[in-house]
Amino acid sequence: MSSARPGGRPSTSPPAFAELWRDLEPLGRDARSGGYRRFSWTEADARCRSWFTERATERGLATHADGNGNLWAWWGKPGPGAIATGSHLDSVPDGGAYDGALGVVSALAAVDLLQQKSFYPERPVVLGAFTEEEGARFGVACLGSRLLTGGIAPETARALAGDGGVTLAEAMTAAGFDPAAIGPRDDLLAGLAAFVELHIEQGRALAPLGSCVGVAEGIWPHGRWRLRFGGRADHAGTAELAGRRDPMLPFAHAVLAARQAAAARGGRATIGKVTAEPGGANAVPAQVTAWLDARAGDEAALAGTVSIVRSVSEKTAAEHGVTLDMRQESYSPPVRFDAELRDRIIGVLAAAGMAAPVLPTAAGHDAGVLAARLPAAMLFVRNPSGISHSAAEHADLADCEAGVRALAAVLEDLAGPAR
Amino acid sequence: MSSARPGGRPSTSPPAFAELWRDLEPLGRDARSGGYRRFSWTEADARCRSWFTERATERGLATHADGNGNLWAWWGKPGPGAIATGSHLDSVPDGGAYDGALGVVSALAAVDLLQQKSFYPERPVVLGAFTEEEGARFGVACLGSRLLTGGIAPETARALAGDGGVTLAEAMTAAGFDPAAIGPRDDLLAGLAAFVELHIEQGRALAPLGSCVGVAEGIWPHGRWRLRFGGRADHAGTAELAGRRDPMLPFAHAVLAARQAAAARGGRATIGKVTAEPGGANAVPAQVTAWLDARAGDEAALAGTVSIVRSVSEKTAAEHGVTLDMRQESYSPPVRFDAELRDRIIGVLAAAGMAAPVLPTAAGHDAGVLAARLPAAMLFVRNPSGISHSAAEHADLADCEAGVRALAAVLEDLAGPAR
Repeated sequence: MSSARPGGRPSTSPPAFAELWRDLEPLGRDARSGGYRRFSWTEADARCRSWFTERATERGLATHADGNGNLWAWWGKPGPGAIATGSHLDSVPDGGAYDGALGVVSALAAVDLLQQKSFYPERPVVLGAFTEEEGARFGVACLGSRLLTGGIAPETARALAGDGGVTLAEAMTAAGFDPAAIGPRDDLLAGLAAFVELHIEQGRALAPLGSCVGVAEGIWPHGRWRLRFGGRADHAGTAELAGRRDPMLPFAHAVLAARQAAAARGGRATIGKVTAEPGGANAVPAQVTAWLDARAGDEAALAGTVSIVRSVSEKTAAEHGVTLDMRQESYSPPVRFDAELRDRIIGVLAAAGMAAPVLPTAAGHDAGVLAARLPAAMLFVRNPSGISHSAAEHADLADCEAGVRALAAVLEDLAGPAR
Repeated sequence: MSSARPGGRPSTSPPAFAELWRDLEPLGRDARSGGYRRFSWTEADARCRSWFTERATERGLATHADGNGNLWAWWGKPGPGAIATGSHLDSVPDGGAYDGALGVVSALAAVDLLQQKSFYPERPVVLGAFTEEEGARFGVACLGSRLLTGGIAPETARALAGDGGVTLAEAMTAAGFDPAAIGPRDDLLAGLAAFVELHIEQGRALAPLGSCVGVAEGIWPHGRWRLRFGGRADHAGTAELAGRRDPMLPFAHAVLAARQAAAARGGRATIGKVTAEPGGANAVPAQVTAWLDARAGDEAALAGTVSIVRSVSEKTAAEHGVTLDMRQESYSPPVRFDAELRDRIIGVLAAAGMAAPVLPTAAGHDAGVLAARLPAAMLFVRNPSGISHSAAEHADLADCEAGVRALAAVLEDLAGPAR
């Protein structure tokens, strides 16, 4: 395999990373914002899927999709005790190039590195690319891994509708996938011994520590709530303020309450999506719908934050004759990654000369969903600005290449001869 | 003319009103909301235009469009000293059936009534249907009458862009109109002796007074401001609150400040349109754009309201590292309608047995724009709920028919033999 690659680079450098990266980079990129719009089951998504399948096939890996659209590429004969790695290819609206994609590209590049040094896995290595990790189209984060593990019922998932009202079932059908086939795959999970996800750091903890790679401790509990404030459309000039039922006012109170409640608990609260209907500049809106993303270091702090947003929203909605429908769209309990796997990874990296600090994270990941079913771990690659979910997200090439070397070392250890 | 109409109804009833109304009612109606989406230069708009031209032609009126897309239908030979009436056919998003359309339908029905009683105008009567009164597509209210009177420069208007980025010039071209022809028409205005606009009441002043028709005193000063809060996209989980530049927070402060400032001055402030970009539920938005509609009984109160919104927005934006770009999109100074014309109309209505109270209004109208150039007046038809700019807007048929009788009496007086 490595003989097919020209250049004769030293075995410690990942020759294919930059090339793979360049290849994937233009897919789903928005010309205006420079950010990505890789939403599941769209044309951009199909192009990313083809790209992954082709790159894996070139490397001699056997590929298939599970019924949930998650892609798998096997190095070595599929069988029990497999070591899985990978991440996702979808993005938030105008997201960065690294979130998700870095883990998939690094997995392919790590296989290159191991093949180049003529390593052959004792147990199979399988690369995964999960569907709809961001929940950008259908509102449920980690949808592909949740379906795989039974974390969401197939009938619930099929009925999820995106902004234009298209359901997951309709979108999958349009993309040539059978929505009747979605659901848990215990057979597949039973064959996996561990999952290691490499991901760009989301935040800025590694830079001050001078480390290019870190290891995840756990994931904060987090969730998403939809708040629908129902008022009454009216004329912006002639409707007296006192008689209005203006949903924009309790919404504004909810925004400020969310921030204050999260800050008081050292957590996070964000309202990044809001729609006012019908949206006339000279009319009181009939309805304002907003999405609250809330996270905290523990479940009590998270519940406290959400409870305050709910009570402030209820109180101010009532004051303005507005109705409130607040419902949880998704919830992820706290994750503590497998301590034994984590310590083994730290040891492997130390032996390779890499000091990898242990970091908590407030971001959800497919590794967090899989952690409920098998030992899982995460490697983080330094994000010098800490910016994430933005076109400005960035990691240096040297750090990405260090991440590939780290992942290759971990796979070599986990899939190599038993210790 | 009246001999062409079957039925032999008494001359005091407006036979054609209900028929005209039924005819226009389905055009541009949204099946889901039940409200109207008659936006200028769209297909719905073209259908409304054709409807008006055909109904006017059936009545023997000579129709033409001025360069701004405003439609005119002449009863009697076009010439100086004409009495103009009419309103507009466009709507706010999911607006009601009456706002604008009632004035156009009533003008046609009033001509029917006068033709039926064999009245022939001594001076020409001209019916107008103005373009983009609501500013729902291009953001500037009364765009057609402003262009006609020189209240907005043609090059400014041509460059106005709607939500999809389509400019007025492009939209007019697509609809088969020449955008090079827009601009003031002093020749046309010089031929008009008066303009009387009938409109559904927007508010609820007539119902408690037991009157079905009222007369306008004046129009509050009002305007529209666009606030663009520029922040930085970031991850909803991992970006610490303290380091964020979240534009949603100063926006929320602006919403609450606008309400409070308007309430303190007995005026109005409304934010009915807001967009958060890129709009991901798990990302801090990069930008929030909102439109403020503000009105007050006098210009000092209006300026005070806007000034408070600006200073609160600036202060809270700065606190969050967010930029603010706040600009006036339109401004309408106060209008006091011509007192002589108003008193003459009150007298005519009293003679016809209708007590018409004089009402102020906080809504802008084409009559307010034209009032700067010629004597103008408005008749209001009772709105029993006061709801406006909503699919729930309503007027009773009997009140609409009374409005037609009132308008016919006014036209008969103004266009009849000199007193």
